[in-house]
Amino acid sequence: MPFPPTPALATDAVVFDAQGRVLLIRRKYPPSQGGYALPGGFVDVGETVEAACRRELMEETGIEAGRLELIGVYSDPQRDPRGHTCSVAFLARVANAEPKAGDDAAAAEWVEDWRRLALAFDHALILRDAERLARAS
Amino acid sequence: MPFPPTPALATDAVVFDAQGRVLLIRRKYPPSQGGYALPGGFVDVGETVEAACRRELMEETGIEAGRLELIGVYSDPQRDPRGHTCSVAFLARVANAEPKAGDDAAAAEWVEDWRRLALAFDHALILRDAERLARAS
Repeated sequence: MPFPPTPALATDAVVFDAQGRVLLIRRKYPPSQGGYALPGGFVDVGETVEAACRRELMEETGIEAGRLELIGVYSDPQRDPRGHTCSVAFLARVANAEPKAGDDAAAAEWVEDWRRLALAFDHALILRDAERLARAS
Repeated sequence: MPFPPTPALATDAVVFDAQGRVLLIRRKYPPSQGGYALPGGFVDVGETVEAACRRELMEETGIEAGRLELIGVYSDPQRDPRGHTCSVAFLARVANAEPKAGDDAAAAEWVEDWRRLALAFDHALILRDAERLARAS
């Protein structure tokens, strides 16, 4: 491709259930190995960011997203210790579904007290923005 | 970087003035050489998408953006004939400013009848979404 180097493109999903719980994974690999994080991952060439978000959510948690709403774009060069990544974050809401961990996720679970957890990367910031969007829409 | 290949990351700016005109450039290089387009370009590694948007706007039109509002993320793999690029588009409003073309722009001008123009890439779609956001906010 004739393009200059640009930040790596990723996506994260904030999924709330009807009780206000958030779907989190435990990371299988570094950075933040074992820590809580939002489901997500890198966007493939040839794939839209929405498709990547649905794919990563399915691979890591077994959960199928309905409508996706754009939360924001997170591109602080320091947000990932491995290098500069930009994440496009989406909000989804599901009624009832049992998560099943897979791929890069060691575990996948509905978390009620997510406000108390230390989350990987800037996922606490993404979650705060998602909560604001969920209340407004 | 240990990252897999991902789409190239770009940004575009929709700038409206107080009369509802849109700031457009004429492209100096292919694709759509000579055609109208939104100011924008690739995000550098180490730069946020907001900073890239302001930088490209300044380089191509000499205009400084105030507050940026996120319009959307455009990642259709076919949107750029050169390869897969994902654009993060922002809305800005300026009161009065005289554009001055530079960098990849052969010209930069305020355009009143932009709805009639054939724009490069998916910029007509981005402009429609920007107009909806501008009316709502």
